[in-house]
Amino acid sequence: MDTVSTSKAHGGVQGVYRHASTATGTDMTFAVFVPEHETGAKLPVVWYLSGLTCTHANVMDKGEYRRACAELGLILVAPDTSPRGEGVPDDPDGAYDAGLGAGFYVDATRAPFAKNYRMWSYVTEELPALIAAGFPADRARQSVMGHSMGGHGALTIGLTYPDRYRAVSAFAPIGAPSQVPWGHKALAMYLGEDRAIWRKHDAVALIEDGARVEELFVDQGMADNFLAEQLRPELLEAACAKAGIGLTLRRQPGYDHSYNFISTFMEDHLRWHAARLG
Amino acid sequence: MDTVSTSKAHGGVQGVYRHASTATGTDMTFAVFVPEHETGAKLPVVWYLSGLTCTHANVMDKGEYRRACAELGLILVAPDTSPRGEGVPDDPDGAYDAGLGAGFYVDATRAPFAKNYRMWSYVTEELPALIAAGFPADRARQSVMGHSMGGHGALTIGLTYPDRYRAVSAFAPIGAPSQVPWGHKALAMYLGEDRAIWRKHDAVALIEDGARVEELFVDQGMADNFLAEQLRPELLEAACAKAGIGLTLRRQPGYDHSYNFISTFMEDHLRWHAARLG
Repeated sequence: MDTVSTSKAHGGVQGVYRHASTATGTDMTFAVFVPEHETGAKLPVVWYLSGLTCTHANVMDKGEYRRACAELGLILVAPDTSPRGEGVPDDPDGAYDAGLGAGFYVDATRAPFAKNYRMWSYVTEELPALIAAGFPADRARQSVMGHSMGGHGALTIGLTYPDRYRAVSAFAPIGAPSQVPWGHKALAMYLGEDRAIWRKHDAVALIEDGARVEELFVDQGMADNFLAEQLRPELLEAACAKAGIGLTLRRQPGYDHSYNFISTFMEDHLRWHAARLG
Repeated sequence: MDTVSTSKAHGGVQGVYRHASTATGTDMTFAVFVPEHETGAKLPVVWYLSGLTCTHANVMDKGEYRRACAELGLILVAPDTSPRGEGVPDDPDGAYDAGLGAGFYVDATRAPFAKNYRMWSYVTEELPALIAAGFPADRARQSVMGHSMGGHGALTIGLTYPDRYRAVSAFAPIGAPSQVPWGHKALAMYLGEDRAIWRKHDAVALIEDGARVEELFVDQGMADNFLAEQLRPELLEAACAKAGIGLTLRRQPGYDHSYNFISTFMEDHLRWHAARLG
């Protein structure tokens, strides 16, 4: 693991690191904030999964998480959203919503994506091991949050591993990718046309198929351009109600899909996570 | 004035606007955050002047000022750092420290810069009038802060118009540009070689020549790469001590020159401004 940069912030260290990933077969870059802490202490880890087009840098620059993480003693890890580099295949049309910057947190099974697009394994297995080895991280206390495509990632990962992630929250998540255009395109490209396979990468389908967590926390801006067509929080709401999952869904009037929305409510999410991470 | 974008943030509105500037003879873009407020209210205005290479966007993205501005009821305005556009002359070598992104908050008198590089008039006259006309701003309650080159701008503007700006603070300012390489280059390029003329654009020289404010607030990171050669806070410290200006200079161990430093202490500065803006 190479250190790309470190910089003191809110008493802690905001770092950017790079390593050769076994999962993706590429170099991967990620950001980690470690708050000030006592020598030898092990801190809980919040995973932040980013949305379409993002790298590790978007939330690092615009997410406004460091002050609250410093106060609450939380490490925050921000991975990239896809493999990158020479030879990594992109969307055939170079579109923003599949391929580079749009890994959708799945392990692709279709050519030419299967070789590198293994973001599920990367985010749930390889990077957690690296973080546990290289940072003062308590692997027994992890939680996951994300935005949009990363909200989809957070929900599906949290629902798949309820014992591993003690809290799961999302900003404007794609809660039912099988039922919206972004998901149709990306899941078909990475996993093929058999929709039964998609269900493991669709929060609503996972819940319908029996996946359970005690509670979920979701913020959704009501001036979000993607609300009606791509995000459809009512589908997650109905699935949680039917399954008895305690969903706190806050519809936030006037907020859009940007980091102005995320940064406004980031502190609420981090406090919610901290309360569950002990 | 055209609205480039608006987005709800921390209950208020983060906007980006563009207008044809008389001062610079170019289009100019700036950012304004207006917190939630009662209809008809007039709010105090904090001016944030950015450093070398920046546009309005750097502090807007990375400054983490909105939460505190929303709580304290402060408008924050972030201008660009130079004229831009076709025909605007740049540094002959395309360097980062003069020309585009490096207006140094002076009215240039030397060709070819004199026509467009009139950032002093733009920031102290034209843009305040535009803000007063277009936003719920109380022109009687203004203050100014800035970073690096923008710290130089904030100090020189605040010292020149002590009745107009009720509070003046800076992050890692170029406090004595006449005595450091960045200032030598830019002031010579914009104002010529006569150093007597530079003194009006040098905070330490202004104080030596009798300019007075009651107090100044400066944060300086001690791991700042530019500290010893370009920033030299000890020169401002000595000038303030001699002149009886109450300078609070905080040397912050471990902090660098980046927005990780600025965002860490932004709230302290805004609270200091708010207390003096009434």
